[in-house]
Formats: sequence, structure tokens, C-alpha cells
Amino acid sequence: MASRVILLSGLVALIVNAALALDNNPILDFCVADTKNTVLVNGYVCKDPKTVQAEDFYASGFHIPTNTSNQLGFNALPATAAQIPGLNTFGISAARIDYAPGGIIPPHSHPRATEILIVLEGSQLEVGFVTSNPENRHITKVIGKGDVFVFPVGLIHYQRNNGSQPASGIVAFSSQNPGVHTVANVVFGSNPEIATDILAKAFQVDNNVINQIKSHF
Amino acid sequence: MASRVILLSGLVALIVNAALALDNNPILDFCVADTKNTVLVNGYVCKDPKTVQAEDFYASGFHIPTNTSNQLGFNALPATAAQIPGLNTFGISAARIDYAPGGIIPPHSHPRATEILIVLEGSQLEVGFVTSNPENRHITKVIGKGDVFVFPVGLIHYQRNNGSQPASGIVAFSSQNPGVHTVANVVFGSNPEIATDILAKAFQVDNNVINQIKSHF
Amino acid sequence: MASRVILLSGLVALIVNAALALDNNPILDFCVADTKNTVLVNGYVCKDPKTVQAEDFYASGFHIPTNTSNQLGFNALPATAAQIPGLNTFGISAARIDYAPGGIIPPHSHPRATEILIVLEGSQLEVGFVTSNPENRHITKVIGKGDVFVFPVGLIHYQRNNGSQPASGIVAFSSQNPGVHTVANVVFGSNPEIATDILAKAFQVDNNVINQIKSHF
Amino acid sequence: MASRVILLSGLVALIVNAALALDNNPILDFCVADTKNTVLVNGYVCKDPKTVQAEDFYASGFHIPTNTSNQLGFNALPATAAQIPGLNTFGISAARIDYAPGGIIPPHSHPRATEILIVLEGSQLEVGFVTSNPENRHITKVIGKGDVFVFPVGLIHYQRNNGSQPASGIVAFSSQNPGVHTVANVVFGSNPEIATDILAKAFQVDNNVINQIKSHF
Amino acid sequence: MASRVILLSGLVALIVNAALALDNNPILDFCVADTKNTVLVNGYVCKDPKTVQAEDFYASGFHIPTNTSNQLGFNALPATAAQIPGLNTFGISAARIDYAPGGIIPPHSHPRATEILIVLEGSQLEVGFVTSNPENRHITKVIGKGDVFVFPVGLIHYQRNNGSQPASGIVAFSSQNPGVHTVANVVFGSNPEIATDILAKAFQVDNNVINQIKSHF
Amino acid sequence: MASRVILLSGLVALIVNAALALDNNPILDFCVADTKNTVLVNGYVCKDPKTVQAEDFYASGFHIPTNTSNQLGFNALPATAAQIPGLNTFGISAARIDYAPGGIIPPHSHPRATEILIVLEGSQLEVGFVTSNPENRHITKVIGKGDVFVFPVGLIHYQRNNGSQPASGIVAFSSQNPGVHTVANVVFGSNPEIATDILAKAFQVDNNVINQIKSHF
Repeated sequence: MASRVILLSGLVALIVNAALALDNNPILDFCVADTKNTVLVNGYVCKDPKTVQAEDFYASGFHIPTNTSNQLGFNALPATAAQIPGLNTFGISAARIDYAPGGIIPPHSHPRATEILIVLEGSQLEVGFVTSNPENRHITKVIGKGDVFVFPVGLIHYQRNNGSQPASGIVAFSSQNPGVHTVANVVFGSNPEIATDILAKAFQVDNNVINQIKSHF
Repeated sequence: MASRVILLSGLVALIVNAALALDNNPILDFCVADTKNTVLVNGYVCKDPKTVQAEDFYASGFHIPTNTSNQLGFNALPATAAQIPGLNTFGISAARIDYAPGGIIPPHSHPRATEILIVLEGSQLEVGFVTSNPENRHITKVIGKGDVFVFPVGLIHYQRNNGSQPASGIVAFSSQNPGVHTVANVVFGSNPEIATDILAKAFQVDNNVINQIKSHF
Repeated sequence: MASRVILLSGLVALIVNAALALDNNPILDFCVADTKNTVLVNGYVCKDPKTVQAEDFYASGFHIPTNTSNQLGFNALPATAAQIPGLNTFGISAARIDYAPGGIIPPHSHPRATEILIVLEGSQLEVGFVTSNPENRHITKVIGKGDVFVFPVGLIHYQRNNGSQPASGIVAFSSQNPGVHTVANVVFGSNPEIATDILAKAFQVDNNVINQIKSHF
Repeated sequence: MASRVILLSGLVALIVNAALALDNNPILDFCVADTKNTVLVNGYVCKDPKTVQAEDFYASGFHIPTNTSNQLGFNALPATAAQIPGLNTFGISAARIDYAPGGIIPPHSHPRATEILIVLEGSQLEVGFVTSNPENRHITKVIGKGDVFVFPVGLIHYQRNNGSQPASGIVAFSSQNPGVHTVANVVFGSNPEIATDILAKAFQVDNNVINQIKSHF
Repeated sequence: MASRVILLSGLVALIVNAALALDNNPILDFCVADTKNTVLVNGYVCKDPKTVQAEDFYASGFHIPTNTSNQLGFNALPATAAQIPGLNTFGISAARIDYAPGGIIPPHSHPRATEILIVLEGSQLEVGFVTSNPENRHITKVIGKGDVFVFPVGLIHYQRNNGSQPASGIVAFSSQNPGVHTVANVVFGSNPEIATDILAKAFQVDNNVINQIKSHF
Repeated sequence: MASRVILLSGLVALIVNAALALDNNPILDFCVADTKNTVLVNGYVCKDPKTVQAEDFYASGFHIPTNTSNQLGFNALPATAAQIPGLNTFGISAARIDYAPGGIIPPHSHPRATEILIVLEGSQLEVGFVTSNPENRHITKVIGKGDVFVFPVGLIHYQRNNGSQPASGIVAFSSQNPGVHTVANVVFGSNPEIATDILAKAFQVDNNVINQIKSHF
């Protein structure tokens, strides 16, 4: 679906580029990622420190709204170790997030990071996360410009811009490669598909409802 | 729904009892959980070591099939730090899992643990997990008695017993309190609910489909 | 000195309130800090989870420039586990930073965190950090609105707003309590003082130069 | 001694194959071990993720009793990162254990893992571990089918099947490479030997007793 | 046995006093151990930081040889978090070791720490450790004054003073509470005893040999 | 300056040689550093374990005073993973320190380690460290032969030998590569320089004072 292609322009970078990272204690002043090296580790191997430059710790463009003209109405510009090789081994990353009016970031989790959101613009941003079984308590709040909210590691959460104007924010993650696991894409859009009758039983609906949902992913 | 109450008998113990735990390096020979203490930490505070007994490192009943007469057709008997206080600080736990013929463990994640499954009985157990965005690659296999499979931390996974006989297995987790985040319950059954139109947009279906799903959770 | 009192209005909160924190793996969905508890641990003990509210994961005011009318020309609004109790155990925190024209954040280190800076406003922000002995290499760059820069854990770094307009930014830290170790304050303004002749020898100047510097801290 | 060769058939695989592993936080969805790579790290380097298959997360044969016809009367089938490359970076592993009637697993420790044992078959399995100096408290219990017991990291422990029938169990470890340090083999069977008079003094017996013990290892 | 009582004077302090500690990342400038607090955690809870003094980071007496007039001919003066409360949360400790001529530190392991030994006095100090199964390789060397040697975490190791003069050294551990697991005491001197016939089978000797050894512990 | 060249003879080894290390949990019996390998990681890659020798865990010369005939009057002989490849992955290192009468180790921090000092010789060794903002509390004590003192990770600290005789000590660090960040060298001697007027404002002195200090570094 075209809108999905557009939507994922930011997320693709977030994930594809951040394919190999490491979030343990750093032991060096820095271990700037050698993203081209064929030796793959739990994180990146390091560049020769003599070749390290200030640019290795740098990214730009966080002031430019990303394109939210897609079906969900959000987009993201990541700054993980894939974009900023100097983040390698440091256990932190960031991203700019934009929300169209009515835009949502659908329910998703980060398998390896807590997220902290600082709202730059916007007045009616509905945010929430849900706790583990069996309570599945929904912690939710409507926040706005200058507000900060925390989403615990591994828990499914979402945001929706209920305001009439675009909203934006900065998020930081407690990992150089948090990962993104969007529930709808993972469950209904995986490659290959998860069997329809498994999902029908899981969501307690008919197969045709599952197939209807799958057709969008 | 009655079946759900039955279904969760094991999971309630898994989560409610395991409400407070700690998965970092142990520094003591043991720090047996004092599960009644009103001081709550990232894990349990320790009992006086002089009062520690062999029973603190012990649980029983893993040979008894759990009751799978519920809508999903699975159940679990956990052995986390909540059931075995001697597990506190040791970063590991286990559970027995039972599957009725056709039973499923619906798509879920463990926010804080990798899982390893050892199949005790069963011949057609379909297992799978899905990778992060944007690939959302589905890694799946049909396994049986004596087989072992791994589900990486934080990733959504599921199992279904395609066999005509009950299946069972032992799972171990890389945390004393892995947590369980069942997608359907989290997204469609949270308390309070996530707004229907957010979910409709996320899953790209009409509100009435969402409400239909919600009615089961 | 009056200016110092003003200057530290933000930093006092950053440090005094963040007096007790914990940056290891979380094992619970959350362990919201009970900041009033008399039991002190490497981090905060947890509130009763039943009393946890959305407000525990929330802070506000990040859109309001802090007062930079002080001698150094900068100020900060922190969001650590001391301000947002829900950050406890999650290994991340944030702050808003403001720079007057010509304002500096003097050389300092964070003993327990890497910092990532996202510039919100400003056009000539000079940033830099220095590597360990014996190279003491100075990695520096002039950045502006929308730029991002990384300061590795434990290394001394600084910023100066060379622009003619105020600048501001969001920073995130890889700890819920990064700590701030401002070199001038630590070395020349500690309580009690470090002996003048030790500092004279360390900086290879006369005692009276040291005493002159000390008089400002 | 022939019996020793037979006995170690399982343990050899457990240790030799698991020669290089890593038990810190994973940062990738997975880092499947490239066990043939000549670059050796604290764990395995990763395979190209594009070549990863479901088989990388899979092992089999846990339903087949291992051969316990050896002097000690036990054997093991391991599932560490050496056997299941998908376990790399995930801090967990497992094994099947079999005990002949009267069979023992002699006192040993795992230098890098806590162990949790789930008994599949057997009725009189004596288990125990001993705490550190100076108490050297012996925590012991007789357990059976369906029982679970925990052995803390680094502490010497043992098991004996006092029943008249074979016993078996599943164990899980809090490391992808726990290591096995069998006291008798380490102390009396190392290569080269530890000097006899050191051991005579350590165990407070004559040299000829030490030499007698050594002759069996 | 009288000699054992004398021998353990140092080790008792090392272990009994160090009963509760924590070796993860510190998040505070310090968390000085409140060793009297009844709340027990994986490490010590912290004193009120306002009451912290320089003495909390201090110990003395490392220049005084300890009494080695015991059967094994060694003794130790520990400096763990139990003796220096300021070590709490910092993952390091130390000890002074003395060896009589011919004195040995019998085979033992530290369940939670690597050890580094710096020899202060002595000329023929035989040191060694043994690797895990199945190689059980013995890495050994004779070292003397000014030499340094490393003993990896969890592996059984020993030292013997082959010189004609007393020897001494400083050791440091990668934990605030490394633990000591002396093989002979653990296996033959635990309380209650490990069954004689288990040990007879483990060491492949007659019961009376085991009983003879046990009689010394 | 000639004296500086002499002074740094030990520190250069400490840092230059220790350029690449790793301080997380070890998973192998050992991962002896292959310091010549061109593959650089957060720590060293491992040598082939078959080529490992006792010498890999060994260093010498700690009994020989280092040359303190330099302007500051101290010197150091390090034993990090760069000098002892067997320390790789074990999170610990050590050094010998010598102080001339009146010698100082100027204010510095270790970005990645807590330090424990054991005084071998000396009678009036003034030691101190300073806590984070805003208290900047100076914890200080005069210690002597046989005394032990702790310097918390990341905090600026110093030592001065006020005695009339040389002093010496052993230090151990909670990292295989602690790093050294000497304040004067970092701030006034970096390459390239930090702008003079930034430092003038930071230390609240005239530019010429800063230039005077810089001229010595």
C-alpha cells in the first residue's frame, strides 16, 4: 500500500540501518561503529580510533518536519547508532516524531528500550501504554507542548494527535537500537503470514475478519 | 468469559505473584525473596539468610498437566521468583505449558526475557516469532517431542498444537520475572479500553470490527 | 555569588532531587520511585504499584525557556527519576537546556551517563569533548538548529552559544541520574576547599592565581 | 578409563562446542552465532542475518534418554549456543540430564550460571548445594517427578538418584555457556597435575591417598 | 580443630561480614552500606548521605602480616564492602594475603569475582588455576616479588609458597563480595555433611578414605 | 616540557596500550586479548584458546619504584588488559603508584572505574574526592602505610604525599580499561585547544590567566 511505503520512510532507516548494535557498558572513550565491516557482533565493531572525526558524533535535520502524508499520519527521523556511529556502545538513541492532525502511532513496543517523549508542538496528544497480564492496565494521559511522558521497555504503547494542528516531539531510547514492533504489522503483515485461523482464535473473530485486516498489511 | 477465567489460572500466578523481581548480577550466595516485605525494590528484598531452607529453592507439580479446557486451549504452571523465592536475583525462571489438541498460545511477547521451549509431548507444534520493523520476518517451524526452540526477548511469538493429542513442554526464561504481554488482551482488553477509533485506524478496519473484537476481551 | 545561585536553580533540582537512583535492568513493568521512603537503595525503592498513576510518568514545562540571566548564561530543566518517578530503573533521563547569547556550559562531565543533545534553536553552538590521557584529543564542532551531538560517558565536555540569539536544546542521558561534575566548581569550589598548593602544582601556576580563581566559587 | 570417556560424551559437547559465548544484553532481534568464524569474541560473532533460518533456533533429541552406562551413572545432552546458534547473546541455555539408578552427578559448579532443574522422571533424587566459607551450609532435599530445584551460580552442588528406576530432568542455565567445573576432575585430574603434596595438605591426607585418587582421573 | 579456627580468622571476616552486597552499575556518587539495616537487598541499603564520612571509604592494617601459624600456613585480611561500607555498589574489593614458608591456599573458587594478585614479598610462589570440563587444563607458574597473576571468575585455583621465607600479596576482586568456596571445606566439611557414599563415588575411593578426609573438616 | 614526558611514561602505557577493552560479564573461562588483531571491538577480540599460556595472565615489576623525577612527582606502572591480555573481559585492572616527597597526582577522574588504593609506603598521604553538583562535597583524609581508600567511579580525586619520604601504593580498578582524565591536561592541554575565552568564563578569570596556564600544558 502506497501509504505504508511513505509512512515507513523514517522507520525503515530506524531499523534497517540500525541492524547491529551493542548496549552494554562502554570500556573505551568511544567505539565508533564501523558500519561497513563484514564482521558482525552484538553491536558494531569499531573504526580505527585514529580515523574518528567530530562528524561521527553528529546528525542533522531534526528541525525539519517529516512527511506525515500517509495513512496513519505520523513519521519519524531516527538518530540511532546506524545514523550516528559514535553512539555505538553508549546505550542511548533518539528520534524526531511528527504527527498530522488526527495522526496516530499505532500500538507498538520497543523490544529493547524504554522511551521518553518530549512534546515540542501540539495540544491534544493522547498517549498510553498497557501493563502485562493479567491486569493489562491502561496508563493514559492527554499531553501537550512541553510535556514529557515515559513508556516502559517492552510494553505496548501508542500516541494519537487529537489536536487540530500538527504535533511533534523528540523521543530518546535507552538503547542504541531499540527496535520497533508495530502490533498490526507484526501480527497481520508478517512475511510469511501467520496462519489465519491462529489469528482468528487469538482475536476471537471469524477468519474473514482476519483476512480483511491482513489485506491492509 | 468463563473460559478466560479458567485459562488465566496459571497466568495469573505467573504475573500477579511475580510482581517484583530483579535480574542483575547476584552478589550473594543467595537473596531469597521476602515476598511479604512492604519494602518494594526492583526485585524482592531478601529474607534473613538464617531462616532460609531448602524449600525456598523448591517447587512441585510440574508433572501434572494443567487444565486446558478453555477457549484457547492452553494453560501454564509458572516457576518464577514469586513461586520459588530462591530464584530472586538469579535471572532465570521456568514454566510448564500444556496445549489441548488445536490449542494455541496466542501472539504475545515477554518484555524482559528470551524463552527456550523444550517439547515433552506432542507431534505437530507450530511455533513462530516475528522480527522487528520493517522486515517483520516470520521465523516458523513445526516441532515435536524432544525438540527445542528459542523465542528472542521482546519479540511477538505464538504456538499452536496442530496435533490430535495434547502437547506439553517446559519453558525457561532469562529473567526471574519475564512478564507476559498477550497482544489481543493488551490491545483489545485493556482496562480502561484503548479508544476504538485509534484501533480502527491502527488495524485499518471499521469501528464495528474493533468493537466486535473488544467484546471478547 | 548571586549569579551562581540563579544559575543553579535548574541544576540543584537535577542533582539534589535525583539523589538516589538505579540503572540496571528493569524486572518489573515499572518500579515507580517512592522518593519519600527512608529506605535508601542504589536507586529508589518502588511505590505500591496499585497507587501508580499516569502522572508518575509525566512532567511538564519543557517548552518554557529557563532563566539564563546569570554569569555563565545557561540554565537547565531536568527530567530525571527525581522529577519523573516512573523513570526509576529505566536507565534514561532528559533535560531542557537554554543558552543566552554568549552563554556557556563550562567544562563538566557526567560520571554515569552518555549525553545526546538535540538543538532546538540556535545557529552557532560550539560543542566539544576531550578524550582521555595521554592524547587528550579535542573533538569539536559548531552546530545549529536541528543538529544532534553525542558526549561520551565520563568525558569532560562543554558548549558555548556563539550566536547572537538565545539557543536551546533537549538532552537525554543514558542514566536516570547522570550526575554533573562541573570542573571549576569541583576543583575550585569544593567544600571544604582542596589545598591551594595542590592546585597550584596541578595547574602549574602561583598560589595567588589559584586563590583568585577560588574566590569566584 | 573407558567409563569416563562414555560419561563425558554429553559433557564434551556441552563445553567444547560452547567454547565462545556472550551473556550481556542483546541489542539485536538476534545475533545468530557464526560458530565457524575465526574472529573470536566474548561469545560468538553473528551470521549475516539474511542467512538466518528457523533451524538456527532449533535442536532436537531431548526426548531420548542419554547413555548412563558409565561409572558415575549419569549423562547429559546440552542445548547451549554451541548447539543452538540462535541462543547467542540471549543469556540462557538448557540440557537434558539422565541418571541411572544410583547414578550421581558428582560435586561441581557452573562458573557463570545459576541452574534450575525440573525433574521429569524419578522418585528419590537427592540434590544439594553448599554455601560459601565459612558456613559451608549444605542445603539439601530429596525430590521427585515434577519437582523443581535451584542451584545458585558458582556454588558446588551435586545430585544422586537414590531411586530404583532411572531418573531424568531438564535443566536451564542463566548463561548461554555456563561451564562445568567438576571438582574431582578439576582437582585430581587436571592436565598437567596439581602437585600431590599441595593436595595432600589441602585435603589433610597422605600423599598416597592423593595419588590413589589421582589414578582414577 | 584448633588450627582451623585460627586459619579462618581472616576468612570469617571476609565472608560473614560481607553477607549482603550488590555488584551492578552504581547510579549514585556513592551508596555507603548501612550494614545494620534490617532491610536486606542484593547488596546493602545506603546510609543517609548526609552522615557519610571519609572513614566510610577507609580501612587500615594492610601493612601488618596476618597470623599464618595454622595448619595451612596462610591467612587473609579482607577489605570488602563489609569492612569498607563505601565500596557498596562499586564492584570491587581487596585483601592482604600472607603465606608461611610452605603455606598453601588450598584449591578454591570465588563464585562471583575474578582475582588479580600482586606479590609484595616472596620468591617461589606457585600459582595455578584449572579450566572447565572437559579439558581441565592447568595453567600454572612460579612467581615472585613484584609479579602479578590473574585467576578467572569461578575457576578453582590455589597458591603455595615454595620459598623458605614468608610471602605476602595484595589481591583485588571484581566484586564487592567475591565469596570463597574452598573445595575441601565445601565438599568434606559442609554442615550437614554430604553423604559419604556420594563422595566415595565422586572421588572413586572407598568410604573409609572419605571418612578419613571428613574427619579433618 | 621534559618533565611531562618523563611523568607520562607510565600513564602513556596505561592508556595507549589499553586502547580497546570490554567490561561486561565474561562467558568464557577466558578470552585472552589478541591485541594485534585488526578487528576492534568494545574490548579485545580473543586469541585462539589453544595458544593461551600462563604468561598471558602474568606481569612483573611491581616491586620496582617508578621514576618520580618529574614536575608533579609521581609515576605509575599499569597492569590493565593491555599489559595482561588475560584480563580481557574480566572487569578489573591494577597499577603501582609512586609518589616523591611532595609529589601529587593532580585532580583527575576515571571515566569507567572505581579505584581502591592500598598504601604500601608513606606516612602523610593526603587523599580526596569531590561529589557531584551542587554540593561538591570534598571527602578527604590523610592516610599512611597499610591504609586503604576508595575513589568512586567518575568523580574527580587527587593525592599528595605530604611526607618527607617517598610513598607508594597499589591501586585496583573496576574496569580492565579505567581511562584517566587529568583535569588540567584535559581542560588546558587538549589538542586542539579549547578556546581561551570559554575557559576564562568557566573559571572566571582573565584570558591571560588562562593563557598562562595553557602555556604549561
